[in-house]
Formats: sequence, structure tokens, C-alpha cells
Amino acid sequence: MSKITAWVAAGPKSTFIKQEIDLGPLGEEEVEVAVAYCGICHSDISILNNDWGNSKYPAVLGHEITGRVVAVGSAVKGIKVHQKVGIGWTSGSCMHCRQCMSGNHNFCSESIATIIGHSGGFASRVRAHWAWTMPIPETLPMADTGPLLCGGITVFNPLATYSKPTDRVGIVGIGGLGHLAVKFAHAFGCEVTAFTSSESKFAEARDFGAHNVVSSRDSSAIQKLAGTFDLLLVTVNVALDWSAFIAALSPKGRLHFVGAVMEDIPVNIFSLLVAERSISSSPTGSPTAMAAMLDFATRHTIAPKTEHFPMSQINTAFEHLKAGKARYRIVLDADF
Amino acid sequence: MSKITAWVAAGPKSTFIKQEIDLGPLGEEEVEVAVAYCGICHSDISILNNDWGNSKYPAVLGHEITGRVVAVGSAVKGIKVHQKVGIGWTSGSCMHCRQCMSGNHNFCSESIATIIGHSGGFASRVRAHWAWTMPIPETLPMADTGPLLCGGITVFNPLATYSKPTDRVGIVGIGGLGHLAVKFAHAFGCEVTAFTSSESKFAEARDFGAHNVVSSRDSSAIQKLAGTFDLLLVTVNVALDWSAFIAALSPKGRLHFVGAVMEDIPVNIFSLLVAERSISSSPTGSPTAMAAMLDFATRHTIAPKTEHFPMSQINTAFEHLKAGKARYRIVLDADF
Repeated sequence: MSKITAWVAAGPKSTFIKQEIDLGPLGEEEVEVAVAYCGICHSDISILNNDWGNSKYPAVLGHEITGRVVAVGSAVKGIKVHQKVGIGWTSGSCMHCRQCMSGNHNFCSESIATIIGHSGGFASRVRAHWAWTMPIPETLPMADTGPLLCGGITVFNPLATYSKPTDRVGIVGIGGLGHLAVKFAHAFGCEVTAFTSSESKFAEARDFGAHNVVSSRDSSAIQKLAGTFDLLLVTVNVALDWSAFIAALSPKGRLHFVGAVMEDIPVNIFSLLVAERSISSSPTGSPTAMAAMLDFATRHTIAPKTEHFPMSQINTAFEHLKAGKARYRIVLDADF
Repeated sequence: MSKITAWVAAGPKSTFIKQEIDLGPLGEEEVEVAVAYCGICHSDISILNNDWGNSKYPAVLGHEITGRVVAVGSAVKGIKVHQKVGIGWTSGSCMHCRQCMSGNHNFCSESIATIIGHSGGFASRVRAHWAWTMPIPETLPMADTGPLLCGGITVFNPLATYSKPTDRVGIVGIGGLGHLAVKFAHAFGCEVTAFTSSESKFAEARDFGAHNVVSSRDSSAIQKLAGTFDLLLVTVNVALDWSAFIAALSPKGRLHFVGAVMEDIPVNIFSLLVAERSISSSPTGSPTAMAAMLDFATRHTIAPKTEHFPMSQINTAFEHLKAGKARYRIVLDADF
């Protein structure tokens, strides 16, 4: 069981080459999954390019994985062979530190990222700790559930933590994460405003559930919304007019980043002080948050809008994403 | 009743001159208070100097006021003549907007600052709306309660909103606000670390209730505290090593500013994202928060450490504060 086929990046920015690799013996607490589908997330590009300086090569990327369990270690709990499961950004954590023991496994200092020093989902098989192997409800289609496991939980978690149904919520950036955020916020019962730089997405943002659509580059339009939003969820990783967005927050409002904006953001403390505003950021979510998200997505029929490529066209699919053409999430169908 | 004596600043950075001024007729919802004591807050200097660009002259400053009610308008509720009361940063709000009606009167867009376009507490008499005239418990000494009404509520409010008794809390800056914050955080049951740039305050910070004291200028000492604090409350208005303080936050930790730091703070979103951290800021508090603070201060015998000057020495007292010599809050005793 240890030899698998994978699409491997030899180094930074290299193209993917199909290779056979050896995963070694299955750990006692590990689950092995036959990959059926794997989404492409912007962070796959960041790790491919070593944008964050923590990449390890050769790299097998892909962390929006669905498939069926083919093997379980002797100490695995709650997961059975042939079960329909998914794996997201994290594939393991220590299970005994304060964070793991309080349900915040995603903050474990020894957590394992699926695509950093670990073989990811652009492969025939992938492994994860049982706690990070998410059972997928039977009614969710395996083909389009992968993106919920990274993009979905990343936007669901702050909405679930910080927003109420009576809130006015803005989603900044309507891409892979943002279009899911609009759907979740709409299902939460919020008044939803989509901010996008692309006029071609205005109509579709409304289809996803946005009540209002505003250009994210139009400072004067944003300034007119001063004092409006309880929560602004930023899914982009480019610089925008942050002071206008901060002013658009209501008293006690929050500007929350889930996109990894690399440039420092200049924050004027006075603009926060006058209205008890917050700025915050979060990554993905814990296993129980992911389970709650999958349950909510099932109940509200929330799925990403996807474009499918066979995994053998992985290099073409990456070019499509890099060109900003994805509408709205690309999923690769395993064809080994 | 409309002629009063006040210490008046004619323009930016001017010294105070004793003058008679006319407050005009008492409003229906207004309370008139004979000033007994008035603390000096750093924001009195900011308004005196027009540091925030919103000062109005001639200015009567002073907004940590205690005294007894001498007159009430015909529509005043809950306040009686001769009652012991206090007035803080805010002296009025519209009472009917969404913020006032939801108990967040301090975010009313028409709120009146006691010392901006309104005659403050360095005077024989001062007026405020009944909702912003705070009854002072009989057991709190009038002489030292004024500073609780601005400095006290400013640090109490975020502690009451964001901290739990099991939290590790850091107080950055041990001055007028910071020394009260240490006392409140200690009474909350938190583990309290005081950060101060002044070694002369180390021992006293422990007397106020700090379990640990660290130099706020020692980046390497702060770096050793990485991942420690649930809440860091910043009471200074100078630039510090913010990235070290952000790293010192635990997962879900919060860096909260109550000092009006004028320089933009460069925030690296990644440093927030990795541990779901927040940056936030707040001003003073609502009338009910002030009442809760006075109740808590009474139960725990929390009072500022003060130095008293006769109000006739107001100019000397301001020089003492500007020189950084206040230990820890200056109160002026009315001597008209």
C-alpha cells in the first residue's frame, strides 16, 4: 500500500510531473484515502511558489480532497474503510496539547499542513490523522465538496464565530472563498453586500445571494457606506483602501481577513477607537467547526460553483487559476 | 445660576486664566453640579493643544468630575438635588438613536464631549444630561473617584468585555490608566503582567497587583513571552515594538488600545491569521458600563493613586503632568 502515484513539483514554480512515490508504513492513527477529487486553492500556488518561505520540495500539493477510505491504522477512531471522507489544510495535530485538548486543534504548534512536508491530494492516495479525516454526509456530492474543506471552512468559521442573522455583512473579493462566503452569509440570514473589482461578477454575486454589490476599488462608493457593517470579511490578498473599509464598519464592527495579505496594513488606532472596532484574521478551522460547516452546508444545499479538469491536466488547470479565470473554484478529478 | 467661575484656555497651548462665564439657562434634561474635585487626564492636554484637531476655544477642560447636584431641569430622571455624582468624558447624547436605544450611548453620533464645545470641570459648576450624570456610591470617597469616570471606565470596559478570570492579561504602560487597569485586572482574578518603560515603577506595579513586571522597551524580553497573553491592554500613546506584542498573544488573543496612538500601526495580517488574533480599540464606556465599574470598584476598594493640587494651581499641576511626574493621577480640589 505504500507506493502511490502523485503529481510532484520538484521546486519553486516548477510544473507538476507524474511520479511514483513511497508514503512508507501507515501510522497507527492514520487513515489512507483513495483520492477521488481535489480542489485547487490559491494557497497551493503560494506553497508552489514558496511565497510564504515555508515550502518543502519535492512537493505534492492539493488540500481540498474527497475520496473513500482504503486503509486505517490500528488506533484509528470513528473512521471506517470505504467511508466517504474529506481532508483539508491540516492533516494532523498532536492531540494532547492545550489547544488540541480544548478543541482548537488547528492552533496546535505541531499541526501538520497537508501540503508542507506531507504528501497532498494531487495523488492517487493521501493520508491524514483520523481526527482530521472529515466524514462527508452522504447527501453532499463528493465531486464538489472538496472546496468546502479549505475555502469553505475558512469563511464559515469567522461567520459562525462573529456574525448574527441580524447583521450587515460585507464580503470583500468574490472568488473561490468569497463566493462561498456570500452563500453562507445569505443562509445565515444576514444582509449581504459583495465587494468585487470585477464588474463581470456583479450579476453572479447577486445569484450567490448578495443583496448589494459594490466595486471594491471605488473608494467613494465605500466611503458612502460609513458606519454600515457589523462584519467585513476580506478574502482577497491584494491591497485595498483599508481606511475606507474600516470607516464602513458600524460601532463594534470587525474587519476580518482570511486572505493572506502580505503587505503590512497601516492601521489608524483612532479609527478603531471611536467605534470600538476590531481587526482580526483567522486560518481554516477546527475539526468540530468543519463538521458543523458540513452539516450546515448539507442543510442549506451550499456548494461551490466549480470547474472540473481531469487531474492529468493539472498544469493547464493551474494556468487557468493563475490567469484569474477560475469561476469560482477548480476541482481536479483523479484519473490515475 | 448661570454665571460661574472657570479656568479658561483662550487658545491652543495657552495657560489657564480664571474667568467668569455664563452657561445660559439650564436645559430641561440637564443637571447642574457644584464641582468638588476634577482629575486631569492626558486627553485634557490633547484637547488643550488641539492634537486631535477638534478642539474649540475658549475651552474649559476637566472631565473627571465629582461634586453635588445643585439644580435639575424639569425633565431630569433619577438624579436629585444634593446627590453625590460624577461626570466623565461624555456629557450628553441624543437618547433616541439606535446606539442610545441599545445602551451604547457612548457611540451616539450626537454625543457631547464634556470638554469640546461644552464647559468642563475646571470650574465652579458643570452641567450634563441626567443619563451621563453618574450617581456615586456613598462609600466611595468623592476626592478620588473622579479619575474612575474617564481613566477607570476606559480600562474597565475592555477588561469587562474581553477578559475572563482565568486569562493572562498584560497592561502596557503604568500611568493614570495603566495603574487602574492593573488593579481592575487583579480584582478580576487574572494573571497580570505590567509592562512599563520606567524601572522606577516596577515595585509599585507589583503593589497595584501585577504578578509580573516587564520592560515595555525590552523587545527580547517581550519575544520570550510569545503566545502568552489572552489580552494585552495598551494604555500608552507612543510607538512600541507592536510586532513583538502581537506575537506575545495566545491563540484568539487580543491587542487592545485605549491610548490614542497617533502614528499608524503597521499590522502584518499573517501574524494575526496564524492564531486568530485581533487588534481593537475603544473609548470610555456607556452609562451602564460606568455604573457597573463604580459598583465593582466599591466592592473591591479600587481607587486611583492620586496627587492633589488646589484648582487655583491648575497651571502648575498641568506642568507636573506634562513632565511625566504624575504618580499616578492628578486631582484638582475646587477652591473658588
